[in-house]
Amino acid sequence: MTDDGSRIDHVGVAVEDLEQARGLFQQLLGVEADVEDVPSEQVRIAMLPIGESKIELLEPTQDDSPVGNFLASRGEGVHQVAIRVDDIHATLKRAEDLGIRALGEVREGAEGAKVCFLHPKDCHGVLLELVERG
Amino acid sequence: MTDDGSRIDHVGVAVEDLEQARGLFQQLLGVEADVEDVPSEQVRIAMLPIGESKIELLEPTQDDSPVGNFLASRGEGVHQVAIRVDDIHATLKRAEDLGIRALGEVREGAEGAKVCFLHPKDCHGVLLELVERG
Repeated sequence: MTDDGSRIDHVGVAVEDLEQARGLFQQLLGVEADVEDVPSEQVRIAMLPIGESKIELLEPTQDDSPVGNFLASRGEGVHQVAIRVDDIHATLKRAEDLGIRALGEVREGAEGAKVCFLHPKDCHGVLLELVERG
Repeated sequence: MTDDGSRIDHVGVAVEDLEQARGLFQQLLGVEADVEDVPSEQVRIAMLPIGESKIELLEPTQDDSPVGNFLASRGEGVHQVAIRVDDIHATLKRAEDLGIRALGEVREGAEGAKVCFLHPKDCHGVLLELVERG
């Protein structure tokens, strides 16, 4: 019953200074990442490829935003773990059966992916993001 | 200069109740994981395979231990992100050149891997673990 294409899609890291963090992780991991604006999420991001996954650096563009609030309360660090699944609605059904609450509806993310977040209180403190790519 | 075998080796999640967390993640992700004791790290763990990576659930066996102290101060959630590299000493040299402090020496981890942690204060709040497998 494992999804064939399942993997860690990316690990999101909230940072105060995207340019500084990007420079450091690029040099440490020996990879390159461009910077993108994602106005719908009120962040600027850099996606560092690593194997079949990515490390996503997230800098809020506004203090009063999900990532801005995370930084204010927790400081820099891992913000979310995104899991790629073959069928997001099937995984959400399993989540619901387990008593895990979804945070909102499935919506369109970057590059046309379908994404949905699960409540960290129901997932042992991990903000899980489900990602289905076409 | 990217390491050819580089990938996210695993994402470690500190949990209060390994059996409960293991049951939930197994059902959510549709995978199986055995429980192992790791006395050297004062934890019991379950490794859930996902793609080329794993999600490692960590329950402390003693309150006064690294994961026990993490739970007491931060609560459940992502504890570390482990990156697999081809040459741990080459990556540590790059880290040192970037001003990133290692937490102790390279030591032997599970399954004969060479592992070393990097200081989260030098890595934007992420406790990075470097892993070289033979």
